[in-house]
Amino acid sequence: MIDDILKDFKSGKISLSAAKRKIGNLSFVDMGFAKIDSNRKKRTGAAEVVYGRRKTPMQIVKIMRQIISSEKRVLATRISEEAAQLIKDTFPDADINEAARTAVVDRRRNKPSPKGDVAIVTAGTADIPVAEEARVCAEFFGCRTKTYFDCGVAGLQRLVSNAESIGKARVAIAVAGMEGALPSVLAGLIKIPVIAVPTSVGYGANFGGLATLLAMLNSCANGVSVVNIDNGFGAAYSAWLIAKA
Amino acid sequence: MIDDILKDFKSGKISLSAAKRKIGNLSFVDMGFAKIDSNRKKRTGAAEVVYGRRKTPMQIVKIMRQIISSEKRVLATRISEEAAQLIKDTFPDADINEAARTAVVDRRRNKPSPKGDVAIVTAGTADIPVAEEARVCAEFFGCRTKTYFDCGVAGLQRLVSNAESIGKARVAIAVAGMEGALPSVLAGLIKIPVIAVPTSVGYGANFGGLATLLAMLNSCANGVSVVNIDNGFGAAYSAWLIAKA
Amino acid sequence: MIDDILKDFKSGKISLSAAKRKIGNLSFVDMGFAKIDSNRKKRTGAAEVVYGRRKTPMQIVKIMRQIISSEKRVLATRISEEAAQLIKDTFPDADINEAARTAVVDRRRNKPSPKGDVAIVTAGTADIPVAEEARVCAEFFGCRTKTYFDCGVAGLQRLVSNAESIGKARVAIAVAGMEGALPSVLAGLIKIPVIAVPTSVGYGANFGGLATLLAMLNSCANGVSVVNIDNGFGAAYSAWLIAKA
Amino acid sequence: MIDDILKDFKSGKISLSAAKRKIGNLSFVDMGFAKIDSNRKKRTGAAEVVYGRRKTPMQIVKIMRQIISSEKRVLATRISEEAAQLIKDTFPDADINEAARTAVVDRRRNKPSPKGDVAIVTAGTADIPVAEEARVCAEFFGCRTKTYFDCGVAGLQRLVSNAESIGKARVAIAVAGMEGALPSVLAGLIKIPVIAVPTSVGYGANFGGLATLLAMLNSCANGVSVVNIDNGFGAAYSAWLIAKA
Amino acid sequence: MIDDILKDFKSGKISLSAAKRKIGNLSFVDMGFAKIDSNRKKRTGAAEVVYGRRKTPMQIVKIMRQIISSEKRVLATRISEEAAQLIKDTFPDADINEAARTAVVDRRRNKPSPKGDVAIVTAGTADIPVAEEARVCAEFFGCRTKTYFDCGVAGLQRLVSNAESIGKARVAIAVAGMEGALPSVLAGLIKIPVIAVPTSVGYGANFGGLATLLAMLNSCANGVSVVNIDNGFGAAYSAWLIAKA
Amino acid sequence: MIDDILKDFKSGKISLSAAKRKIGNLSFVDMGFAKIDSNRKKRTGAAEVVYGRRKTPMQIVKIMRQIISSEKRVLATRISEEAAQLIKDTFPDADINEAARTAVVDRRRNKPSPKGDVAIVTAGTADIPVAEEARVCAEFFGCRTKTYFDCGVAGLQRLVSNAESIGKARVAIAVAGMEGALPSVLAGLIKIPVIAVPTSVGYGANFGGLATLLAMLNSCANGVSVVNIDNGFGAAYSAWLIAKA
Amino acid sequence: MIDDILKDFKSGKISLSAAKRKIGNLSFVDMGFAKIDSNRKKRTGAAEVVYGRRKTPMQIVKIMRQIISSEKRVLATRISEEAAQLIKDTFPDADINEAARTAVVDRRRNKPSPKGDVAIVTAGTADIPVAEEARVCAEFFGCRTKTYFDCGVAGLQRLVSNAESIGKARVAIAVAGMEGALPSVLAGLIKIPVIAVPTSVGYGANFGGLATLLAMLNSCANGVSVVNIDNGFGAAYSAWLIAKA
Amino acid sequence: MIDDILKDFKSGKISLSAAKRKIGNLSFVDMGFAKIDSNRKKRTGAAEVVYGRRKTPMQIVKIMRQIISSEKRVLATRISEEAAQLIKDTFPDADINEAARTAVVDRRRNKPSPKGDVAIVTAGTADIPVAEEARVCAEFFGCRTKTYFDCGVAGLQRLVSNAESIGKARVAIAVAGMEGALPSVLAGLIKIPVIAVPTSVGYGANFGGLATLLAMLNSCANGVSVVNIDNGFGAAYSAWLIAKA
Repeated sequence: MIDDILKDFKSGKISLSAAKRKIGNLSFVDMGFAKIDSNRKKRTGAAEVVYGRRKTPMQIVKIMRQIISSEKRVLATRISEEAAQLIKDTFPDADINEAARTAVVDRRRNKPSPKGDVAIVTAGTADIPVAEEARVCAEFFGCRTKTYFDCGVAGLQRLVSNAESIGKARVAIAVAGMEGALPSVLAGLIKIPVIAVPTSVGYGANFGGLATLLAMLNSCANGVSVVNIDNGFGAAYSAWLIAKA
Repeated sequence: MIDDILKDFKSGKISLSAAKRKIGNLSFVDMGFAKIDSNRKKRTGAAEVVYGRRKTPMQIVKIMRQIISSEKRVLATRISEEAAQLIKDTFPDADINEAARTAVVDRRRNKPSPKGDVAIVTAGTADIPVAEEARVCAEFFGCRTKTYFDCGVAGLQRLVSNAESIGKARVAIAVAGMEGALPSVLAGLIKIPVIAVPTSVGYGANFGGLATLLAMLNSCANGVSVVNIDNGFGAAYSAWLIAKA
Repeated sequence: MIDDILKDFKSGKISLSAAKRKIGNLSFVDMGFAKIDSNRKKRTGAAEVVYGRRKTPMQIVKIMRQIISSEKRVLATRISEEAAQLIKDTFPDADINEAARTAVVDRRRNKPSPKGDVAIVTAGTADIPVAEEARVCAEFFGCRTKTYFDCGVAGLQRLVSNAESIGKARVAIAVAGMEGALPSVLAGLIKIPVIAVPTSVGYGANFGGLATLLAMLNSCANGVSVVNIDNGFGAAYSAWLIAKA
Repeated sequence: MIDDILKDFKSGKISLSAAKRKIGNLSFVDMGFAKIDSNRKKRTGAAEVVYGRRKTPMQIVKIMRQIISSEKRVLATRISEEAAQLIKDTFPDADINEAARTAVVDRRRNKPSPKGDVAIVTAGTADIPVAEEARVCAEFFGCRTKTYFDCGVAGLQRLVSNAESIGKARVAIAVAGMEGALPSVLAGLIKIPVIAVPTSVGYGANFGGLATLLAMLNSCANGVSVVNIDNGFGAAYSAWLIAKA
Repeated sequence: MIDDILKDFKSGKISLSAAKRKIGNLSFVDMGFAKIDSNRKKRTGAAEVVYGRRKTPMQIVKIMRQIISSEKRVLATRISEEAAQLIKDTFPDADINEAARTAVVDRRRNKPSPKGDVAIVTAGTADIPVAEEARVCAEFFGCRTKTYFDCGVAGLQRLVSNAESIGKARVAIAVAGMEGALPSVLAGLIKIPVIAVPTSVGYGANFGGLATLLAMLNSCANGVSVVNIDNGFGAAYSAWLIAKA
Repeated sequence: MIDDILKDFKSGKISLSAAKRKIGNLSFVDMGFAKIDSNRKKRTGAAEVVYGRRKTPMQIVKIMRQIISSEKRVLATRISEEAAQLIKDTFPDADINEAARTAVVDRRRNKPSPKGDVAIVTAGTADIPVAEEARVCAEFFGCRTKTYFDCGVAGLQRLVSNAESIGKARVAIAVAGMEGALPSVLAGLIKIPVIAVPTSVGYGANFGGLATLLAMLNSCANGVSVVNIDNGFGAAYSAWLIAKA
Repeated sequence: MIDDILKDFKSGKISLSAAKRKIGNLSFVDMGFAKIDSNRKKRTGAAEVVYGRRKTPMQIVKIMRQIISSEKRVLATRISEEAAQLIKDTFPDADINEAARTAVVDRRRNKPSPKGDVAIVTAGTADIPVAEEARVCAEFFGCRTKTYFDCGVAGLQRLVSNAESIGKARVAIAVAGMEGALPSVLAGLIKIPVIAVPTSVGYGANFGGLATLLAMLNSCANGVSVVNIDNGFGAAYSAWLIAKA
Repeated sequence: MIDDILKDFKSGKISLSAAKRKIGNLSFVDMGFAKIDSNRKKRTGAAEVVYGRRKTPMQIVKIMRQIISSEKRVLATRISEEAAQLIKDTFPDADINEAARTAVVDRRRNKPSPKGDVAIVTAGTADIPVAEEARVCAEFFGCRTKTYFDCGVAGLQRLVSNAESIGKARVAIAVAGMEGALPSVLAGLIKIPVIAVPTSVGYGANFGGLATLLAMLNSCANGVSVVNIDNGFGAAYSAWLIAKA
């Protein structure tokens, strides 16, 4: 990108001030209420994903349409029921996941085979929505996923009996609320990196997942890194960066 | 106690106002800077223990002497090195535990046999001082103890291989810092109550044991109750109340 | 359990890989969205209880049915009004407690006599729902209970006049909000372990029970351990483990 | 004050701008590093007290001398050992209280009789330094005080037997650390206002007195107001304002 | 009270165990869900007030009726709109204050004259409901009140011009949200005790009044004590104890 | 103002007590529920703005009318939809901004030209409402504004390409949620003061903007000062004070 | 800068890859342990200041020498006593301010006249070190300063009598600890922007300045923005950016 | 491991109870005060590392010797100066890194070539010790590392000019204090996973790294996961798990 501009400038096609302006301007599409970062794919390797919270259904659909036009596909996360309905009406081929609150549109002709294995483990049933967000996102990015739900540490054999299978993936996402012990115990059993996702499941002195988050950051086991509370998307993104190579 | 006073009052031995005063006054020894609760043993079943923090070595020794005179024995906790030295000088038969920072003097002629089994489990080496405080206290109260050190969840087999033995006690004390997962995993393996003691072992976002405390309170396993950070004495006291029966 | 598998393996009935798989798999029933820990009763002494929050009424009922089929009885806690209705429709013999938000189904032919006395004390009227959850759970586990409501420390005689009766139980559950002084004062009057339950009753700088929780953890009285805010179930479970022996 | 200036202005003694300047300037003595509020006694009824923290011994002594020159007496609080020594050297008649960390110089010819009774109650021995600060300050302001030390709620009879005596004062100061239940229980027994002083006595999840402070603010008893952690001076000041009338 | 029981016991009218039971039982009326502390008036000088939060309208009305029967009057605070309606229907002579969310029924024949002056000052318009709760309660307890609304420190002359009038009361209640500077500035201007009430008025980093509460506790002015966030009732109660004498 | 009163007093037009009363009273208009600070414009340079939260629509409209009568214009912020409707009905010429939740009425004949340039930058689309509040307020105060939306640091070129233009203003307002890095990066690129506004945009461990606020306060770049969470008005006011000169 | 590189590239003096490298590399001096941002003056208008914390005296002196060589002058802040000594030994012409913990070396031949007035106000004597840091920094940046110490709100006339003088500056820095009311009261009296600096002066529930910080952020007065706790340097930098124009 | 035991059991070499015991016992070496998890290398792929905090120098050396005997090499972290000295005395070939506070002993004959590239970036000079810990650990685990120090976002070109080089690694570790913006900006520029390490560098409202930690968790950029404050070891471990494949 910058190479082209520098060359055009050298060849005299563009002026000095134009060169300077182009370095900045060309790399995003200004929609007034949002600047779509069309250069991001080249820079970071992934197209922009639409984060649905605090956006109106109409804003979400407009941004999705813009991204589809250039990328042939798009992922939207944290969409409300209203947004899901408008997406369904606008893009009949959208794949809506209610638990995960995601929508995927994929109009590519030749879809590449999935690459890189991601294991997604939850402590309890209530952690499944966050795990599903992680699963949908990881698959959108191009990974193969396998899920292991309800493997909390209070019934240890559920986790131990699955550890060998989990350990065959390239990276594991451990989703848990409450005391957040799952990633600690899991990381002690396997040889792959563990991305811990605290969930806001819990009550009393849990403080919306803060207690779980702190426990995970204090893990006595090695190989655990943590993303924000309920951030299935973030875990999936990091997992993809790890698994894709 | 109140029976005697009421009877004395009825029989005319004492006046109305004397009866009222006696109900209050007889039950403690006023030392000026402290009121020793000499009635506590009758009321709660245990003699008063000397909590050493914020007391001068001299104050500690004076209170110990007072309690020994009536109880024939005494336990002091959280004693500084200076206090330990003065105690040793004053009571040559004192049993000082440096790790636990405790001192015990026991001059009873006929010591009763220990009664009630308490298992004390730690996650790591650094949790041992708190566990030792719990052990010394539980034994002072009259329990039999057995310790299981360094059984953290990152190396699960260390805990699993000891679970059967731990489960034979009447109550378990689980001492852990970091993410505090030990009591959760332990309680899922045994059938006895677990008293969790968070320790201030940890760093970064541990906040002096707060992260551990919150994790333990949010335990997904059943049968776990929690005492204050580093409070080995408190865990031992509750354990004794459970195990003595 | 593991004995049977090991023996079958030795006798040649099952292969090495089957032996390993069985050790893990046999001990839970996989329902897709949940793994019911059917081995827990043997391991910890109690059947699994259905925690109703974040589960749909239909999920709750399905899990209840599965547990009833093997255990002949089940307890569900934290059920919404909708869930209570569906439970009532599905199990006409269910015993719903609206204050406690619990449901019990018990189809055992020969019900064992209750065993172990649990005293349940509250500071105020507003703490009763949490105390009722504790009462229902403790009775489900097999204990005898006695309740002492509205014994807050601002009117001390209400507590003092009941202390002797409370002290005859094997264990006391003290439920309080506000400044949480009840367990401290109670533990100074009796000789049994006290399990403190902070409630989210309070306002201003109470922070949903956090102020109460901290106060209880800092109790100056001995023999107090604490469970999570509003966690009547957890207190009952620990109380049962203490009282059943 | 303002009357005099207004009158002087009317009578022509002073100009308009002088009138405006005088309203501001006359009411404090500028020492460069501090402006002594010499008008405060008239305005609020009390002379300025020297708060010793973060001031050098020399600064403390200089301010004390300035106040003595106009008031004939002065009180300094939170003085370091170094400051205490310099005060002693400078004002040989100073009354130093080591526990309270206060110094009083009083050179008035005719000292007024004390007026207004203040009861000062502590939960434990470790709370005494804060209580002593309150006592010294209250007496400096002109009150009569009576102290009741080590009356914590874990040994209830120590407090109950003193309640009648405490209740005869005009106001009570309740000093406590740990779970801070003392003012709640006390206020339920007497008919006078209670000023609660949380102390930083405690450990684990006490957070330097914060847990105690929150408990006191959440008191279920009526008639309790709270000052900052360890703030014996503040409690004494409010108590004096209540008792002096 | 205790005198009568002791005398009856001495005279043989009642047995030993009856004497002991009576000491506890006589001092409250047990309504099942609540123990009304009928002895409180004698002990603390005030009848019990009905705190309406977390109570059903029916529970509130029942307790009010019980108290009216013995006291001829009652105050209920924090009542919901539904409760207010039921109170109005049940006690047509009830005085409902919508802003304060209080209800007063007073059926005494000879009402005593108000005694003791309480000044109630607010920083802003939004603090008025809390101030009104304080006003209604203080008047119920028997004080004379005078209100000074919207005297925040950003427009200093509003407070300064009223300071002389405020200072003529026996005690001032300062109600403020935001940065909570009102009591600090006010206490620097007058000679009477100031009870500060932080309100949950504010936004952003105010945390439901916590920022205001902390600011008030850290007041640099003397004579300020603090009650819980939004606790107009508590401020009034303390003010009454101060002003009534 | 005070000059006039002093002169009237000197000339004998008014008495001493009248002079004192007038100094206080003249400077605000007492509406019962609010004291409008009519002197503020003279004192601080700006008319009072109506802060709409916790005020009823009717209260807002009444205060607006009062201010319009003296100032010919008024700004109301944080108005609910109901308030917006009533304002529209009452002042048909009101300019309502739905995103910003503001209303402006301006009936001045000769409007002064805007003076002082303010650049308003946001990190994301979701920060726009706060930025709009800042824009409307800054323009009401008399500034010229220019907005730069969706310039978050994850797509750095969006900010870099606009830095030169932003740097030509007199002051920049940087509005951001999430990790709040925008003001740090921006301040490193330009030579003007940056006022940072944390927004409550974010989820998980964001705590309603607290994480963002703390990050901004800890900025490693120079020239950044911070206002409260979501406080677009406050940022605009400070920006105007900087830019107007 | 970028212009030169682009022109050199166009003229063929440098290659494409060199052009790209130079854009990045030329703008800082790499010292191994630190990259001195020599381009910052051009970009942000100010030379880099040496922040002394966590740097060894030797590191500080080395960086100072480097900056002096290009800028002829340098400012170091937060220097330890050891660092101050080494600076004095190395740069005999250094101006060390012990209270502020700053060092200034200025070897410019022609020093420009100060430009832009900054008023620095403190609430108490203990806030002076932070105010001194602000004063030294503001003067280094080229401003004229005037200080107003010990003007806390508890003695209001000290602030009011100085308000007119303070208001003549271009910007005010308000330094306060405790309840942090100073900037709120000050901003209500003057027409210039106020930069509030919370200090860690305070005790009890002050939490190292957090209570003060929160109070300032919640200021009810307009025109206040806030910098980090004790950050006199940051306040001075923002003040300079405001005042220099 | 378990295979061998199962086979031995089948063949009759060992009894049933021996089989059960061996499953647990064989996998650690019990040293009394610590259980060395000798099976960990097989299970998780890495030998145990000695965490030096809260261990005595003698304990550290003993554990190191045990690990060396089986592994031929060992890494100790967070060692005090005293421990470093004893290690040096005991193992003359130890490689001590003072900044990182680490010690490495490596006595393997044939050392494998490093594998997997890890880029380590810091925001400031003060973050270097944490980065050095990460570097030493990553190299011990077998990775190649490259460091980029002092690339904070306030001087953006320092980071931008290095982004291409950083992006060629397999994973980046971003170490920063203050507002913690480095990983957000970095992740927007490269295509590899970023592990963020908050450091406790900062002052005022930084709270020992908590503000930085929260900012990093709230990163608006994708591909960032976080480890505990100052946890260079943990970041290196996760980086190795990512890079080694």
